[in-house]
Amino acid sequence: MATVTTKTGQAVDRLVLDSMLRRRMFYTPSFEIYGGVSGLYDYGPPGTALIANLTDLWRKHFVLEEDMLEVDTTMLTPHEILKTSGHVDKFADWMCKDPKTGEIFRADHLVEEVLEARLKGDKEARGQKVVVDEEKEAKKKKKAAKETKAVKLDDAVVKEYEEVLAQIDNYGGPELEEIITKYDIRNPTTDGKVQPPVSFNLMFQTSIGPSSNMPGYLRPETAQGQFLNFQKLLEFNQQSMPFASAAIGKSFRNEISPRAGLLRVRWQEAPRFAGVKDVEMSLLNRDVQLSGSTEVTKMTIGKAVETGLVDNETLGYFLVRIQQYLLKLGVDPTKLRFRQHMANEMAHYATDCWDAELQTSYGWIECVGCADRSAYDLTVHKNKTGAPLVVRETRAEPLRIEEWQVDIEKKKFGPRFKKDSKTVEAAVDALSQELREKLSLDLEQSGKIEIDVEGVGSGKIELEKDLIKIEKRTRVENVREYTPNVIEPSFGIGRILYSMIEHVYWSRAGDEARGVLSFPPVIAPTKVLLVPLSTHQSFKPLTERLSSKLRRLGVSSRVDDSSASIGKRYARNDELGTPFGVTVDFQSVKDSTFTLRDRDSTKQVRAGEEDILNALKSLVEGDETWEDVRQRLPEFTGQDVE
Amino acid sequence: MATVTTKTGQAVDRLVLDSMLRRRMFYTPSFEIYGGVSGLYDYGPPGTALIANLTDLWRKHFVLEEDMLEVDTTMLTPHEILKTSGHVDKFADWMCKDPKTGEIFRADHLVEEVLEARLKGDKEARGQKVVVDEEKEAKKKKKAAKETKAVKLDDAVVKEYEEVLAQIDNYGGPELEEIITKYDIRNPTTDGKVQPPVSFNLMFQTSIGPSSNMPGYLRPETAQGQFLNFQKLLEFNQQSMPFASAAIGKSFRNEISPRAGLLRVRWQEAPRFAGVKDVEMSLLNRDVQLSGSTEVTKMTIGKAVETGLVDNETLGYFLVRIQQYLLKLGVDPTKLRFRQHMANEMAHYATDCWDAELQTSYGWIECVGCADRSAYDLTVHKNKTGAPLVVRETRAEPLRIEEWQVDIEKKKFGPRFKKDSKTVEAAVDALSQELREKLSLDLEQSGKIEIDVEGVGSGKIELEKDLIKIEKRTRVENVREYTPNVIEPSFGIGRILYSMIEHVYWSRAGDEARGVLSFPPVIAPTKVLLVPLSTHQSFKPLTERLSSKLRRLGVSSRVDDSSASIGKRYARNDELGTPFGVTVDFQSVKDSTFTLRDRDSTKQVRAGEEDILNALKSLVEGDETWEDVRQRLPEFTGQDVE
Repeated sequence: MATVTTKTGQAVDRLVLDSMLRRRMFYTPSFEIYGGVSGLYDYGPPGTALIANLTDLWRKHFVLEEDMLEVDTTMLTPHEILKTSGHVDKFADWMCKDPKTGEIFRADHLVEEVLEARLKGDKEARGQKVVVDEEKEAKKKKKAAKETKAVKLDDAVVKEYEEVLAQIDNYGGPELEEIITKYDIRNPTTDGKVQPPVSFNLMFQTSIGPSSNMPGYLRPETAQGQFLNFQKLLEFNQQSMPFASAAIGKSFRNEISPRAGLLRVRWQEAPRFAGVKDVEMSLLNRDVQLSGSTEVTKMTIGKAVETGLVDNETLGYFLVRIQQYLLKLGVDPTKLRFRQHMANEMAHYATDCWDAELQTSYGWIECVGCADRSAYDLTVHKNKTGAPLVVRETRAEPLRIEEWQVDIEKKKFGPRFKKDSKTVEAAVDALSQELREKLSLDLEQSGKIEIDVEGVGSGKIELEKDLIKIEKRTRVENVREYTPNVIEPSFGIGRILYSMIEHVYWSRAGDEARGVLSFPPVIAPTKVLLVPLSTHQSFKPLTERLSSKLRRLGVSSRVDDSSASIGKRYARNDELGTPFGVTVDFQSVKDSTFTLRDRDSTKQVRAGEEDILNALKSLVEGDETWEDVRQRLPEFTGQDVE
Repeated sequence: MATVTTKTGQAVDRLVLDSMLRRRMFYTPSFEIYGGVSGLYDYGPPGTALIANLTDLWRKHFVLEEDMLEVDTTMLTPHEILKTSGHVDKFADWMCKDPKTGEIFRADHLVEEVLEARLKGDKEARGQKVVVDEEKEAKKKKKAAKETKAVKLDDAVVKEYEEVLAQIDNYGGPELEEIITKYDIRNPTTDGKVQPPVSFNLMFQTSIGPSSNMPGYLRPETAQGQFLNFQKLLEFNQQSMPFASAAIGKSFRNEISPRAGLLRVRWQEAPRFAGVKDVEMSLLNRDVQLSGSTEVTKMTIGKAVETGLVDNETLGYFLVRIQQYLLKLGVDPTKLRFRQHMANEMAHYATDCWDAELQTSYGWIECVGCADRSAYDLTVHKNKTGAPLVVRETRAEPLRIEEWQVDIEKKKFGPRFKKDSKTVEAAVDALSQELREKLSLDLEQSGKIEIDVEGVGSGKIELEKDLIKIEKRTRVENVREYTPNVIEPSFGIGRILYSMIEHVYWSRAGDEARGVLSFPPVIAPTKVLLVPLSTHQSFKPLTERLSSKLRRLGVSSRVDDSSASIGKRYARNDELGTPFGVTVDFQSVKDSTFTLRDRDSTKQVRAGEEDILNALKSLVEGDETWEDVRQRLPEFTGQDVE
């Protein structure tokens, strides 16, 4: 795994960052006083504010700018619906059990961990420098795990391992079982053998209602609630196509994660595509991965759609919009790529899928999935329920269709076939055009025909001329009826949050302990820190006035009137990612001028109250950058506080 | 049940309102194409926007204005925590089963339904006018239920029934069983006997982790996650007391509901109480209910706290803040009351509780609960885990305490009591001050004492002089350590949403079908409707310009350029509750003046673009009322569209 560095070129020290994030209560292990539960976290005040700001920006960027229809659907889902959607049978991971310890591993993760450890051992044996992931090491030692052994491997074996790892997401259960046997993959802690992978459904089972008689699940995705409301949403949109819906909420896939999801009806030409076609993207397609490589291709989205690398304009348009959203959050563009799923990797409902992945010290993390679900979901629900999950459009030009039509003499059908008549009618209706043409000749020639009807008599029945008529006629179709295709971008808010934090994290030159989180102002949990230089009585009215005026401007601020030194107070807020600081000093008491400090450069300007407030408003709303403000307002060098 | 009327004095016709809300997709039954699931609803675009606006206002009104610490804690909760908190044993409703049909009823609801039906039948028999709840009637007929029988009851029986109903929330299982037997309460549909009530836990059970080996629940309330983080939140607040935390999210109590909850450490004097003490409230205390009445008392909160009707200032302050929040949403103050819980009604953790209830066509609905949880939760979690969920404060004046202290001769204790020594030591530590004083005399007089130690030997042990010393000494305490009391207001967003909609609903004079939802602008899903009078080419740039300028001002708008008549377009948006309309007409194309229409009065003004935009901004932000704007800008009577 490549070393990941901050924007100032330091290696990201995850231990230091993680302890800072916990100390400042961005997140904290849930139920810690009860010993904690692996994988469950609570967000503290700054983390909660970040989530709220990310979500708010998401709503503006997608829902408002694109006039989407936002819905909020229930989390409980009856079994029948997820059976129809395919989730009951196919929404699963392959898991291996160690029968001795009872531990359960995700099979692909186990293979990855063991092969990566062997490759590391090989590098050590070859005397190459190995980047040590300290936290993983620490955890391993805690578990009294075995140390990595410095064992040299054959060159051919190294190549084989690397190829397996590049395609790891493409393997199903049988392939993983083969790999586990072939390379003798074992429990890395105990060296015990593991059982063959079994498919484990990821959904949370529960029951609905007080009598617990309706089995169901907590929703594995927000998309189903939107598909099921398709007709109503189309109606709400005054029957106009195309349209998009959106949902923000928790999904449950053996972890509970905040997600935001969209459904966009796919159109051959996306109306806004022209406006984004020159945007450059880093793309990693499936063929490259299958060849064992992970090298990205840089090209404009226009070119990517033109060459067929990205399948269609709607999909391309959303990839760009996803990229734009991530960049607004402060994601480092050099640590962003779009990776196409390989055939076996795709969810059962997808015909194509691109993931926006962000590079972190854990490797590349899938943060947004953008799946082409075609007409899959609407079709399965339509077939199951009979509800017309279709679009009906009046044709500009009526369509004239020449076809073979069948008329049945209903009065004679009933007495002849009795309880089977419905079945026979259905079999007649289902006859193909080709067959109808052939049968019309039979009927003319012999006065009767024979057709297959499963389950009735011998499975074949005869129909005479007086029972049936087959003729070629012209049908005029004024309405076009079709099931639309759907593109589904789905955002893992928690993963985006963590990766984004790693991207904006750095530390002040010369002092690794002085961490800074350079959130863009729009995302920062608190926008302004108000720092009175003294606890003197006369300062209080000033900070209170600033604080209430900022609130009226819609800019969140926090007062730090603790007795800590001003340097300490700024350092604390660097860790909280507060982009601006306003110092209240003795001069302020006299003439209502204040110092405004920029977190990233630590440069300061000084001006009167109104100027400072207006500058803050336009900085936070993104109308001006710090450079703009610095050029407008007089620099201040009195007390340069780093 | 009293008839509930709209602000224009019409009876609320719930059938009409409900069909309007579904037609406009405020909400819609979940999984309708699969037949629906009773009690589960999805919010469509206007409902989702309402929820978002309610939540946003909640965050501003409580979290920002009061500097609360907002957290977002996990929904999965291990069994042990909810066992400790008392939810596993006590978070339950009493349910009755009809063994023949398998139906399950909430016992108190069943008693209410049956007794209310009998009282209605009595009124009919006496020839009094009966207000018919049409929907209930319709549903009953659908179920082929029995009609209400017009049977006259004895005056004494009527009185008894009324007293039972006033206290219905105060009955536990045994009382409900007695009532069911005494009054022969049966399944109202089939007249079948029901089984005695059994306690049914309201939590959703699930299991945590892939091996499903950790039993747990989906959280029944957001409060536990906040209690468990008490230490960290106190630390985040720089150890300063008092403080409050807040959480917004779903809770699961055999229904899943969006909730927002607060925890506020209780202080003897609430610093902001003085500012609200003259606010008048409608209070219904527990003694009045126990006397069989539901008459409210109107008084200022200052008076209520002074007379002890409301227990303390912190509780009183929050009741006022809750009232202010509900009024901002558009709740009708004459349909709001605060009802105190009766002793048996309170949750197991509460020492006092007041509910904000809103009157609707369903009766009074509990929308916000404000519980005094004292130190209950922090104490049980502290006792279970040993975590110091306490506040430690340096005393301004050290406290000097005279007390009887016990010293143990540890060297001799071990050999004498062996494996029991810890138990004996604990028993000695637990001796009360009174007992210690008495024992010190025994020790002096007889050279030995006898103490009770459960589970060791005969349950009594002797300790001689050389094993133990008891002396009166002075202890100096510099730090005050205490477990704070907590007030918990908890908001049911879905219930508030529905009740508030009923309060703002009315219909245009003379036309019951023309419904209007008079949401306050801050809450309305869409703030402005843009209505081009013609589909002429020249109109489009104008509507697009208005729409984009409004977006920049943070005012959400929607264009309706359908071919429907302008009256129809306004009527549709009355149903959606859009407070303002801007008409683009031929004059606008010439001189950029526009007509601005107020939903409630249907009055219009006309002015230039900048004036109209500024008026909209200040109307939506609450800086001006419609009356202010109407007096400022020239009235327009050209095309008065109702």
